[in-house]
Amino acid sequence: MKKHVGVGIIGCGYWGPNLVRNFARQDQGSVVAVCDAQLERAERAGAGTGAELITTDSSRLIARPDVDLVVVATPSRTHYRLAREAIAAGKHVLIMKPMTTRVDEAEELVTLAQANGVLLAVDHTFVYTGAVRKMRSMVESGELGDIYYLDSVRINLGLFQSDVNVIWDLAPHDISIIDYVLGGRIPDEVSAIGAAHAGSRHENIAYVTMKYGPNVLAHVHVNWLAPAKVRRTIVGGSRKMLIYDDVQPSEKLLVYDRGVTIAPWEDPEAVYSSQMVSYRSGDMHAPRLDDREALSVEADELIAAILYGGSVAADGASGLRAVRILDAAERSVRDGGRPVMLLTPEQVTAAIPIVPADPVDRVARLNART
Amino acid sequence: MKKHVGVGIIGCGYWGPNLVRNFARQDQGSVVAVCDAQLERAERAGAGTGAELITTDSSRLIARPDVDLVVVATPSRTHYRLAREAIAAGKHVLIMKPMTTRVDEAEELVTLAQANGVLLAVDHTFVYTGAVRKMRSMVESGELGDIYYLDSVRINLGLFQSDVNVIWDLAPHDISIIDYVLGGRIPDEVSAIGAAHAGSRHENIAYVTMKYGPNVLAHVHVNWLAPAKVRRTIVGGSRKMLIYDDVQPSEKLLVYDRGVTIAPWEDPEAVYSSQMVSYRSGDMHAPRLDDREALSVEADELIAAILYGGSVAADGASGLRAVRILDAAERSVRDGGRPVMLLTPEQVTAAIPIVPADPVDRVARLNART
Amino acid sequence: MKKHVGVGIIGCGYWGPNLVRNFARQDQGSVVAVCDAQLERAERAGAGTGAELITTDSSRLIARPDVDLVVVATPSRTHYRLAREAIAAGKHVLIMKPMTTRVDEAEELVTLAQANGVLLAVDHTFVYTGAVRKMRSMVESGELGDIYYLDSVRINLGLFQSDVNVIWDLAPHDISIIDYVLGGRIPDEVSAIGAAHAGSRHENIAYVTMKYGPNVLAHVHVNWLAPAKVRRTIVGGSRKMLIYDDVQPSEKLLVYDRGVTIAPWEDPEAVYSSQMVSYRSGDMHAPRLDDREALSVEADELIAAILYGGSVAADGASGLRAVRILDAAERSVRDGGRPVMLLTPEQVTAAIPIVPADPVDRVARLNART
Amino acid sequence: MKKHVGVGIIGCGYWGPNLVRNFARQDQGSVVAVCDAQLERAERAGAGTGAELITTDSSRLIARPDVDLVVVATPSRTHYRLAREAIAAGKHVLIMKPMTTRVDEAEELVTLAQANGVLLAVDHTFVYTGAVRKMRSMVESGELGDIYYLDSVRINLGLFQSDVNVIWDLAPHDISIIDYVLGGRIPDEVSAIGAAHAGSRHENIAYVTMKYGPNVLAHVHVNWLAPAKVRRTIVGGSRKMLIYDDVQPSEKLLVYDRGVTIAPWEDPEAVYSSQMVSYRSGDMHAPRLDDREALSVEADELIAAILYGGSVAADGASGLRAVRILDAAERSVRDGGRPVMLLTPEQVTAAIPIVPADPVDRVARLNART
Repeated sequence: MKKHVGVGIIGCGYWGPNLVRNFARQDQGSVVAVCDAQLERAERAGAGTGAELITTDSSRLIARPDVDLVVVATPSRTHYRLAREAIAAGKHVLIMKPMTTRVDEAEELVTLAQANGVLLAVDHTFVYTGAVRKMRSMVESGELGDIYYLDSVRINLGLFQSDVNVIWDLAPHDISIIDYVLGGRIPDEVSAIGAAHAGSRHENIAYVTMKYGPNVLAHVHVNWLAPAKVRRTIVGGSRKMLIYDDVQPSEKLLVYDRGVTIAPWEDPEAVYSSQMVSYRSGDMHAPRLDDREALSVEADELIAAILYGGSVAADGASGLRAVRILDAAERSVRDGGRPVMLLTPEQVTAAIPIVPADPVDRVARLNART
Repeated sequence: MKKHVGVGIIGCGYWGPNLVRNFARQDQGSVVAVCDAQLERAERAGAGTGAELITTDSSRLIARPDVDLVVVATPSRTHYRLAREAIAAGKHVLIMKPMTTRVDEAEELVTLAQANGVLLAVDHTFVYTGAVRKMRSMVESGELGDIYYLDSVRINLGLFQSDVNVIWDLAPHDISIIDYVLGGRIPDEVSAIGAAHAGSRHENIAYVTMKYGPNVLAHVHVNWLAPAKVRRTIVGGSRKMLIYDDVQPSEKLLVYDRGVTIAPWEDPEAVYSSQMVSYRSGDMHAPRLDDREALSVEADELIAAILYGGSVAADGASGLRAVRILDAAERSVRDGGRPVMLLTPEQVTAAIPIVPADPVDRVARLNART
Repeated sequence: MKKHVGVGIIGCGYWGPNLVRNFARQDQGSVVAVCDAQLERAERAGAGTGAELITTDSSRLIARPDVDLVVVATPSRTHYRLAREAIAAGKHVLIMKPMTTRVDEAEELVTLAQANGVLLAVDHTFVYTGAVRKMRSMVESGELGDIYYLDSVRINLGLFQSDVNVIWDLAPHDISIIDYVLGGRIPDEVSAIGAAHAGSRHENIAYVTMKYGPNVLAHVHVNWLAPAKVRRTIVGGSRKMLIYDDVQPSEKLLVYDRGVTIAPWEDPEAVYSSQMVSYRSGDMHAPRLDDREALSVEADELIAAILYGGSVAADGASGLRAVRILDAAERSVRDGGRPVMLLTPEQVTAAIPIVPADPVDRVARLNART
Repeated sequence: MKKHVGVGIIGCGYWGPNLVRNFARQDQGSVVAVCDAQLERAERAGAGTGAELITTDSSRLIARPDVDLVVVATPSRTHYRLAREAIAAGKHVLIMKPMTTRVDEAEELVTLAQANGVLLAVDHTFVYTGAVRKMRSMVESGELGDIYYLDSVRINLGLFQSDVNVIWDLAPHDISIIDYVLGGRIPDEVSAIGAAHAGSRHENIAYVTMKYGPNVLAHVHVNWLAPAKVRRTIVGGSRKMLIYDDVQPSEKLLVYDRGVTIAPWEDPEAVYSSQMVSYRSGDMHAPRLDDREALSVEADELIAAILYGGSVAADGASGLRAVRILDAAERSVRDGGRPVMLLTPEQVTAAIPIVPADPVDRVARLNART
């Protein structure tokens, strides 16, 4: 039985070389092919990996029998085309965020991957960090209580992108963190407001709000034109609250045993008095976090899912959920900030039935190929 | 000619005693009467001021001939009634924020004050701080260039109010700062989203967005249920950017010589390339600020305006502008976040002609009375 | 049986009014007399306290029968004379830090207080804070393990004193914190280096080191001429370490579950290899602290000690220990930084036998007087 | 004329690979040989550099004619032997800090390098950073005024070294920064106190004080056993003060326009009154810094000095000055903290005449060799 995954990587710009490096050091995986539109970038990224193919031709990479997993690290607008080709060729696929630039494309990839029994994963890097994993486990275990809100700020004097706005560039990070922490819960509606400055055609500042039922909010502030770097997510719960500050070199996650309780009152017409409000202000705590590099954890998890049939923290379904939210945010910006309703899971399922892929199939396929 | 202002203060809860203290130390003003629904609170606040009247009866205070200025420091819902009574009695009035809880009430007070030739001021405390004054002067002088956005965060584990939501409680600070820094510019539309938690009937978290023309945004995050205290306003301009962090004990205002310029391109269909974007990252600078207590500056300025006919940084018109924005935000929250258009200045003026009060009249009135 | 302590306060400069305020709000104590060389300062401080005597004559205050406790809040050089007079008159005494400016004076006060059966306390304010009390309890309980070092920094652009150097002005805070946390342990030797700048005759920067046995160090950096304010004490222990940062508005005390263990080696000639060193890097924790004002806790404790015979956190013996260290530091500075040995407790006791005062005596005296 | 420097690097542990990388990307230099006691470490470091010799034999590296510059990146105790061998072979030498572990060895290397007309440089990395260069230029230009003190803290939970104490491991950074900022000024005396914990034989915490004349102090706190990382140098001057905080991701250098002036007084017996002290508290400023990697600047400068005869920021003389101070600090620790006098420059020169090397000679030698 084959216990090895051959990895082919397309796209060696900013992020691709990090992927190459992390797949190259896998015990049960290796980089067998590297592709970039500029050959010298592919050569530089592939140096020392033992890759047999260094090419500018993505189709040659996809077609190789020794490539089991295709990593798509090209500009967003090419994700759909390359991933579709790879899935059609029976390859497992890892796509950078955002998975696609259109909802229908994302839906098609998810459906195709199911039909072909391959694994579709998305590089939502942060869901592989120790901090975000700890956040999710604290929500799941009930330690935070009911979740009231998530507030995420991701701003700095950043790289202006020429082909997308700041929502599609930065908000995928926050949206994927929120999606993961809330266990894939889908918001009822999304609204967003943005503005373009400094001669750009694309919004460089935006605020995105997601509503989950009547009283749970998630809010994201993304900004390429801020004087200082902020990377901070606050989560408010009924029992505890936390601040995840990714700019800190250590103690990135602070958990506060704080909150408020308002006693219910008998006279429904009465306003409550200050006596009915009780504040709790206990200890603060910074749990020790797994400090492995996120990409390394991601590569481990992906190789294991392919070889042994496990799941990954960010699969095609989560990629699709993020694209739906990004698309709704974009439409809300175009509509002056009016909220955009999202389809419910039931409505989505009625339209495109997302059957959980059978992991055993995936493994069988891989083995059959060898 | 009288060169002295008699001050009567109504309301001695949290903020009132600070007002008493700052008016008591004026050279050209003194506290002559103090009122509170609880007599002992009035007594405690008035002790050592030489006030001749300590009372629970606000009408007695307003009726006294030696009271030239009535300070209304009671809960918001009573502001309108008390201020109207004082203005009708020919008194100058200082009202705590928010000026009123309804737009029509605020309009009536502004109109009445003009008709009676008295000064109407609002306690927008922050516009009397060294930091906010410096921010305004940097905007006015063009040092920041074109203003792109203002982003204000005011969150902590705060005092839940029983009768208003967090927008009416905290956002007046941010809205008045924005109003002052932008020189009274009125937004085209306002949208807001909020949520109520912990058993409260009122929103304890809210996001308010103001749009000024197509590409200038002001955004406010207010929150009574946050694990840590943040008081931070970022202003992005085409030439410089600044961060005002009120939690810092010193260097509250940081000015960054940073920005981005995107060269215009010839082919209108082309996306810009990264070569067309130039980043500027120069010095950071924390100007020395006037560190006098804001309330002390406010009292000085108010006394001087009454005696010598000057203006105050926060007059009735700015109070009215803030109430309009708060009201629009409230309506947007009730409407699920849909943007609410604001009347233009012209539309407002057509409805209620706001004639600038003649300061000489005010002084003459005061002198005539003595 | 009298259950009330009459307090007389001498000195109404910077700190005195805070003492007046905190003793005035005691249930079982009241301010009965206030003294200052400038009558108007005494009047201002005493206003509203119900004090029957406001005077410039400290002897009149000390002589009053209704004064049970004399608070000495005058410049340091006058502490000895005033405290001696009060003790001789049978009064309990609270002296500001430093207790005296000479060791022999401090010894005499301690001896006299014992002989007269009165309580002698020193205003080492920080030992009444929640943070320092927590530090002590963590040391006492063994949670920190063996104490390795204490490092304290207290610097800012401070008030240059005209009559003492920065050691006598600021270091009493750090030395009293260290003394309290270590349970009154006496260092073997003290060394100090300082420098005088800006035209001053007195050192405005100094470093004081205390050695406790061969390998426990306490180090204090005090500085009136620093660009920013730092108030930070680090304590390193074998099991945990902590940082007490008094400038933080909250989470002043951070406890780190961190450390290093080096395995003992068999070959005594060998250097250890990196394999023998194990690092531990666990959670960080900010315990909830008692946030009452330190002076309020101090006044409570002092009144209770007088009425019911308990002890206080900073008694005359701790004041004397601090003066010994300050005096040794001063001598080391004069001697170019050479270490100065301190007398051992046994040597001290041989010279001046410090018998713990009998608290029952104190109470009996107080009761007898009434 | 040869315009190229062949570099041979000995030692590929923690720091060596960084040196390899930075010399490999030089236009006028290249890595021609790499050596380490473990061959695989040398191979890994040398991969991709085009080095012709990868060896475990340092003498073979030194002997190669194509090696012009030998970089000694081995443990400290081997520096002297390797550098002496390289200098004797007519090679330029760059040694990691500390240059040697004994003063006589450092003196011999300086003397030998002069005699052989080769460049001797020391890797005092920080003197090649934008922040430290800016600090020096501010001191040289007089912008800070007279220098009063330098206070440097370098602490964290660090790598316990098996063969040296924390003074020899960390303090060379601070001492070389201080030496560079003060333009090579030599302290009159050095004192130091340290302690060893956690089973170590070597001090893991130490305080080193240098005195320059009666009232200029430099103080260094180094610590391997601290709960948090601090890298901060404060410089106090008569006109301005600055804080260099190397932990900050940006704005590492803050310059404060603050200070104190005490008016001289006529009566020499009088204490000064608070009226005689004037405080200045102006703007704070964070100048834009050169943010190139320090090692890259160092490699550039070294190559240029070899080829064109310029000087380097950290030459053998500065390495020797640092070793003198480290040695004195060590002796002071052994002597219980008693101050150790340093030789004056004149005394040093009398003993070992340090003639500035003639850079033209160096270039001539290099050229002659090709």
